[in-house]
Amino acid sequence: MEREHIQCDGLAPDDEPGMPEFEDDKPREACGVFGIYGPGLDVARLAYFGLYALQHRGQESAGIAVGDGAVIRCQKGMGLVGEVFSGEDIDKLKGKVALGHVRYSTTGESAVENAQPLVFHYQHGMLALGHNGNLTNYHELSRQLAGEGAVFQTTTDSELIVSILARTTKDNLADGILKTMSLIKGAYSLVVITENRLFGIRDPLGVRPLCLGRYRQGYVLASESAALDTIGAEFIRDVEPGEVVMIDDNGVTSLRNHYPSKRALCIFEFVYFARPDSVIDGLNVQRSRGALGRELAREHPIQADLVVPVPDSATCAALAYAAETGIPFSEGLIKNRYIGRTFIRPSQALRSLGVQMKLNTVREVLNGKRVVLIDDSIVRGTTSSKIVQMIRDAGAKEVHMLVSSPPINYSCYYGIDTSRRSELIAASRNLDEILALIGADSLNYLSLEGLYAAMAPLAPDSFCVACFSGAYPIPVPEAGEVDAHACNC
Amino acid sequence: MEREHIQCDGLAPDDEPGMPEFEDDKPREACGVFGIYGPGLDVARLAYFGLYALQHRGQESAGIAVGDGAVIRCQKGMGLVGEVFSGEDIDKLKGKVALGHVRYSTTGESAVENAQPLVFHYQHGMLALGHNGNLTNYHELSRQLAGEGAVFQTTTDSELIVSILARTTKDNLADGILKTMSLIKGAYSLVVITENRLFGIRDPLGVRPLCLGRYRQGYVLASESAALDTIGAEFIRDVEPGEVVMIDDNGVTSLRNHYPSKRALCIFEFVYFARPDSVIDGLNVQRSRGALGRELAREHPIQADLVVPVPDSATCAALAYAAETGIPFSEGLIKNRYIGRTFIRPSQALRSLGVQMKLNTVREVLNGKRVVLIDDSIVRGTTSSKIVQMIRDAGAKEVHMLVSSPPINYSCYYGIDTSRRSELIAASRNLDEILALIGADSLNYLSLEGLYAAMAPLAPDSFCVACFSGAYPIPVPEAGEVDAHACNC
Amino acid sequence: MEREHIQCDGLAPDDEPGMPEFEDDKPREACGVFGIYGPGLDVARLAYFGLYALQHRGQESAGIAVGDGAVIRCQKGMGLVGEVFSGEDIDKLKGKVALGHVRYSTTGESAVENAQPLVFHYQHGMLALGHNGNLTNYHELSRQLAGEGAVFQTTTDSELIVSILARTTKDNLADGILKTMSLIKGAYSLVVITENRLFGIRDPLGVRPLCLGRYRQGYVLASESAALDTIGAEFIRDVEPGEVVMIDDNGVTSLRNHYPSKRALCIFEFVYFARPDSVIDGLNVQRSRGALGRELAREHPIQADLVVPVPDSATCAALAYAAETGIPFSEGLIKNRYIGRTFIRPSQALRSLGVQMKLNTVREVLNGKRVVLIDDSIVRGTTSSKIVQMIRDAGAKEVHMLVSSPPINYSCYYGIDTSRRSELIAASRNLDEILALIGADSLNYLSLEGLYAAMAPLAPDSFCVACFSGAYPIPVPEAGEVDAHACNC
Amino acid sequence: MEREHIQCDGLAPDDEPGMPEFEDDKPREACGVFGIYGPGLDVARLAYFGLYALQHRGQESAGIAVGDGAVIRCQKGMGLVGEVFSGEDIDKLKGKVALGHVRYSTTGESAVENAQPLVFHYQHGMLALGHNGNLTNYHELSRQLAGEGAVFQTTTDSELIVSILARTTKDNLADGILKTMSLIKGAYSLVVITENRLFGIRDPLGVRPLCLGRYRQGYVLASESAALDTIGAEFIRDVEPGEVVMIDDNGVTSLRNHYPSKRALCIFEFVYFARPDSVIDGLNVQRSRGALGRELAREHPIQADLVVPVPDSATCAALAYAAETGIPFSEGLIKNRYIGRTFIRPSQALRSLGVQMKLNTVREVLNGKRVVLIDDSIVRGTTSSKIVQMIRDAGAKEVHMLVSSPPINYSCYYGIDTSRRSELIAASRNLDEILALIGADSLNYLSLEGLYAAMAPLAPDSFCVACFSGAYPIPVPEAGEVDAHACNC
Repeated sequence: MEREHIQCDGLAPDDEPGMPEFEDDKPREACGVFGIYGPGLDVARLAYFGLYALQHRGQESAGIAVGDGAVIRCQKGMGLVGEVFSGEDIDKLKGKVALGHVRYSTTGESAVENAQPLVFHYQHGMLALGHNGNLTNYHELSRQLAGEGAVFQTTTDSELIVSILARTTKDNLADGILKTMSLIKGAYSLVVITENRLFGIRDPLGVRPLCLGRYRQGYVLASESAALDTIGAEFIRDVEPGEVVMIDDNGVTSLRNHYPSKRALCIFEFVYFARPDSVIDGLNVQRSRGALGRELAREHPIQADLVVPVPDSATCAALAYAAETGIPFSEGLIKNRYIGRTFIRPSQALRSLGVQMKLNTVREVLNGKRVVLIDDSIVRGTTSSKIVQMIRDAGAKEVHMLVSSPPINYSCYYGIDTSRRSELIAASRNLDEILALIGADSLNYLSLEGLYAAMAPLAPDSFCVACFSGAYPIPVPEAGEVDAHACNC
Repeated sequence: MEREHIQCDGLAPDDEPGMPEFEDDKPREACGVFGIYGPGLDVARLAYFGLYALQHRGQESAGIAVGDGAVIRCQKGMGLVGEVFSGEDIDKLKGKVALGHVRYSTTGESAVENAQPLVFHYQHGMLALGHNGNLTNYHELSRQLAGEGAVFQTTTDSELIVSILARTTKDNLADGILKTMSLIKGAYSLVVITENRLFGIRDPLGVRPLCLGRYRQGYVLASESAALDTIGAEFIRDVEPGEVVMIDDNGVTSLRNHYPSKRALCIFEFVYFARPDSVIDGLNVQRSRGALGRELAREHPIQADLVVPVPDSATCAALAYAAETGIPFSEGLIKNRYIGRTFIRPSQALRSLGVQMKLNTVREVLNGKRVVLIDDSIVRGTTSSKIVQMIRDAGAKEVHMLVSSPPINYSCYYGIDTSRRSELIAASRNLDEILALIGADSLNYLSLEGLYAAMAPLAPDSFCVACFSGAYPIPVPEAGEVDAHACNC
Repeated sequence: MEREHIQCDGLAPDDEPGMPEFEDDKPREACGVFGIYGPGLDVARLAYFGLYALQHRGQESAGIAVGDGAVIRCQKGMGLVGEVFSGEDIDKLKGKVALGHVRYSTTGESAVENAQPLVFHYQHGMLALGHNGNLTNYHELSRQLAGEGAVFQTTTDSELIVSILARTTKDNLADGILKTMSLIKGAYSLVVITENRLFGIRDPLGVRPLCLGRYRQGYVLASESAALDTIGAEFIRDVEPGEVVMIDDNGVTSLRNHYPSKRALCIFEFVYFARPDSVIDGLNVQRSRGALGRELAREHPIQADLVVPVPDSATCAALAYAAETGIPFSEGLIKNRYIGRTFIRPSQALRSLGVQMKLNTVREVLNGKRVVLIDDSIVRGTTSSKIVQMIRDAGAKEVHMLVSSPPINYSCYYGIDTSRRSELIAASRNLDEILALIGADSLNYLSLEGLYAAMAPLAPDSFCVACFSGAYPIPVPEAGEVDAHACNC
Repeated sequence: MEREHIQCDGLAPDDEPGMPEFEDDKPREACGVFGIYGPGLDVARLAYFGLYALQHRGQESAGIAVGDGAVIRCQKGMGLVGEVFSGEDIDKLKGKVALGHVRYSTTGESAVENAQPLVFHYQHGMLALGHNGNLTNYHELSRQLAGEGAVFQTTTDSELIVSILARTTKDNLADGILKTMSLIKGAYSLVVITENRLFGIRDPLGVRPLCLGRYRQGYVLASESAALDTIGAEFIRDVEPGEVVMIDDNGVTSLRNHYPSKRALCIFEFVYFARPDSVIDGLNVQRSRGALGRELAREHPIQADLVVPVPDSATCAALAYAAETGIPFSEGLIKNRYIGRTFIRPSQALRSLGVQMKLNTVREVLNGKRVVLIDDSIVRGTTSSKIVQMIRDAGAKEVHMLVSSPPINYSCYYGIDTSRRSELIAASRNLDEILALIGADSLNYLSLEGLYAAMAPLAPDSFCVACFSGAYPIPVPEAGEVDAHACNC
């Protein structure tokens, strides 16, 4: 049973070959999770607001499940949080514990069956689960369970985790969770609710973030601390790698198996994914991005007239680069903020005639200038060459491209869509070859050392940098068995 | 785990107490199934047309699953067939084998999670299943499976059958189906598809109908023969009670376990549910309804001026009654055909002021007449008294109510929503008491003997008449464990 | 300015050439109107229920306008009444006077711009208007007004009437209405509301029906009396041809210009359009249809075994024919009641392979029989041949077709879509030629004399029978100027 | 007839009093227009892309009308451009000339009837019109026309302009346009199409922008030059104040009446409305905003540690302020980009408990700092005090607020929603009083002189600055007659 051949969504394959290059050339975050335990609170509404703050982590589908002590009710659907829920929907989700989830979209893989939370009945009642991450032993485990007669409605890791939870739970769900953690391998930040309890679970290496906060008489879990801020909750601490927090009327109980104290937080959360206003494992994202810009300035000072970021994610690094080098900063690229999911893409013919929807240049800013163009990462390189050309067309004399992270050489198996390795521009090319494709006057990446330096005071060995180095902290499936880039959360 | 307490649909309980009495006072059919095997044919489109012909068997949700040899794709949703599918949807469902399903709606129980077909992955690939009927040992079986670690996303019989199928199937799905049939009890007409095969399954007593036809180079299965007519397929035969038909490139293979030759076809298919143009187990529905009217005429000849049916289902019996007695027939009640699912119900206040949306009388026809009013059945009696009063208001001198079937005394456990026994008007009242509630000048039901006579040449012991007699041909759950009337297909 | 070339709906022309023949081969009613004046009543909700009862007169669009003494609010949209309005929509339409309208749909002509009521501001405040009918001097009047600088957003008669009303109204709307009536020619039943008044207007010949009723402390106007019954209103009388009724706090005031006492009620209301339970100008529709069947029996007694109606509209005539001739009656054709607006039509290829969605035969009833097939009218003859063939395919030995009205030889210019004259099967063919096309064993129409006889006690000169006789009671535009069959209400 | 009492949208008044304060405290642009003449081009699709670039000028409704030489077709609806049009919709709009329009939304005033383009029939054929601006003599003109019998379906300026156009056009639409311009007073940038021509019209003072470009063999008109860039069109020039450009197969023809050479371009286009990448009347918006920041630095240098903009519109001025003063710049406020139209607003209770959806602070950046907070304008002041408080809560020691434009003292009558004068925080308060309300440590606005200086080389008398100075360049209606802030475009 090959995972990539299983389809149940009624969707024909994408027949618009020009589309991917029109998208952002960025890795895609898998998911965002949110949980709240709060008897007497409007938990569904607070989950709704919390999901709004995590929307950048997934725009394909959204869902909220609520436990009221007796049953779990769930509403989910395709689209943004604001599209999936009406006020009436939220009103119907009464309860004391809630779980919210947002999931991202890649063409052809989106289907409402895969939307989360997953809600299910098992021998001890009902459970709902939301997952951010990716298992690396999915195939092994799913073959084993299927051989024992298990059936699956999706091919997601998440449904597999549910089946394992049901089999490992005897009398006590917390025990079942710990047993499940000993079976599953990979990256996972999970929020689980029963009819009256909330659980937060982070994998032994802590690849994906998950934090805990207090809100009035209750508690909150979220992928990022910005979601706590949004509802006015107070940050308590990150959930620790390998930790299970159980929240109920007795407050917060921490449970854990014994694991080595190794950590492997995804460094890309700081480079690109997470909100600037979030703090992950003690480090503020915006500060880390400023440090990336400063490291870049130290490693690659350029003689130039102007620093221009690729909006929006590189702005912070570019500001710091400009401040450090003394080169003026300006927003020379303007992004159209209305390009959304339902956008009618221009045909290749129209694009070649100049239709360019997403970015526009400011000629008055760029004309005659030697420009340092800063981006946070390059994945396939499909848009970089277009942006460089746009900036030249606006009159720039030189375009020097700087990237505030190292070259992406390896696919991610831990919950990020970084494309297949064969599509990664840096996987099989040296710097000169990439420069030739990009068409800039010069191209430089931040070094891995510079990246680590920017993460201070977090130590280098706190991070997973496999996409840059190939040093996978968790064994990955052999080639052929799984598409590394598949989002299975 | 009590089935009636499990909810996962985000729907608050119905808060419009006046609604039920505004609905038809009829039992509700559970579901309709359709299957087609036809390499080279547009199987999804043909399934769509076939479901249109079965729409009367379920108006809550509709779905079509298609196998293309490699995977199964599925589209389903809430609403009528014409609402769930666009032409584009159908175009995307390419394949050689298709399964269609329509499901009915009762207030508060409808949810897209329960829509069928159910599609799932198991150790040997993919399966989709559509079910018409109801299991009687659901609780016993689901407790057993859950104890073994099975999880369920719904509380439907259908998902349970799927789980059992996956556990009983070793190398051969046909064997798994036969083993599953030895475990499940109750009424079930099932259509199952794999990526490249079609199965039709009828329970050992044949409670629900299922028939087989030929269409061009392929084969068709349907709950009713009218669906075969609709797509231009040729009727071959009914699937036999206890039979499994397997259809693939080798044609039709019949498989079966050994069962006693007892039959228990639901007699209500003839009384009310099925389309007049269908033939079930050899008997045309329209002819049987004519025979019911004639039997009624023999048992209850009335001195009257006019025979009037409650439209539409009683028209055929009323025509026959009129022909047999020589009393003129006229459509004295006019039904509004536009009352649909999205109708804004008039408040009780407005209804008491005379708003009456569904039926209107023809005063010119009824005025001054002694009227024989014929209906096919009375369940709770909520609308009969209203209709009798309307006819009196239109000037009728007398209203004699005749029912072309016996009093409904018992709830159905085999896939029909006949209401709880406590709501059945006839369950705890004698004829005089019912007459008093209905407010007619006289009231008579057809006898069980008359009912049997009308079914000739089918023998009395071919039928399940448990709702009239209480003689359940399959053991039913003990009181308290299950709501008899719950639709779990 | 040619009317048929003006398009503003963004709709490409119909590219499904096979569609029309799939539709009913019936003339199409233009519209239904409803008005209610009732301070203290929930007038919008009552209008909603009233429109439900008139839905058969128009299924393309629906709208309700409400005056609250200060302003008029309006909600309208494409679709059935139940699709256009939510309960919330109705709740927002607070007021004391309401106007409802339903409009029909023909392919390619439907657009929300044409939905009614039309609401407009003029020098004395606001007005809303709903129209059933068709003007014959539209082009003359619209050219004249456009020459004076008038602009139109649609090419409907109704917008033209509004413009004329605004120009002819000096101080008093009632005077303006009477002046407008002296300028416009054609068929029109109008309901008009201001912020606090209700007007009902019927053209001088009374081509379209309009009746007046009392509801609690208020008054109701409706195209058909069945809409009065539906909300529990009491029928008072028909609005007279040429009469204006003005309803406000002073009750009902009748106004009229002097017109000859000639009448020309559309006889097709009785033949096909109107609900059987309506009474128009004193004659009940169901009774008149029964009389049509009896006249048909007198004119065309046939030696046959069975009378079968084309459902649903011919059932009443067929019952009467059967009763009169003594030939047994049976429903040998079953109509699928779920074929709606959003239906995916089968391709010509599938239809030729036998897909037949709308009607099915009951072989058990028809096999071996000499069948009298009764329809109420034949327009283009596109479906009759199919039905005859279906009945033969079901085993009928003979099929004798009888039509309970005369051949349609002329197009209607008064608000009915009877197709272009060139498309009318009877316009250029004698009976034998039609018979050959239909493929029946015999074909007979009711004579004009028989039609008149069935309308007793209404006199022959009460009716417009122009579609049968070509004797147009109101001068019609010259050929080329206007498409007779265009619905412009 | 008072304009604000006329309603025809079925919408009840806004019952969420807390909502406005949740919105941005910004003036609202009325509309954006786009036109394209291009035989052989996919004009509707290009208009769609052009409207995307103008989406910031109106998010309530969008519409495109297309002339194909014979007729005009139009599609419009409520919502964003991407929501109103499907690819299929665009495909249906075939033609050689197109007009696009986006319109903004204020609660309770939105209705599809007001969506543009308006399409109408008049004596010489069809016309469509899109309007950005506001007439000041609407009431006088509409009373006059209504007195002559004109009717209106909306109370928009745009429909009035249409009616005047139809009355003033004898043989030649260009003449009619010039005559219409002599009658209407106020601000208007209009795009008009006939079946085969395109017109661009700018009012005599040029209050609203409108520019002309070339695209392949055709021509383009747009509110802003960024829309030309987006489709790859080449900027030719701005349409001149008082100029009419007529575009057809003969190319571009310029027509104009004689007007004084006075100009009054809305200066708020530079302060806030327009895209940074647009060039209006020769001045790039981003450059002008940078100049505003520099002027602000000259006028109000502050001893501080950090410059923080209110995102997004004040970023450019804040960057320049920081560069000029040498104070470090940082994005201390993070905006949630997913807050859209369908957002469920938090209740006042939840907001008071800390739910804050739109903005979040970065504590790591702000903590312990003396912050210069820069915004581009303050209208009612409802959000400024919240933002100041948030920044204090994040640990800032001081918050000095600077505004890169003068205090808004007067309402706009020329197409901008600046709120009623009574709601303008600066209209009746001196700086100290405003400071007290805002709660900052200091508050300073840019002076009018500084504003003018930043607009160089455009001369001060090129601009309308009425909202700051009260010097209205076009006479405005007397108090009571009209709500200045009403959007009537």
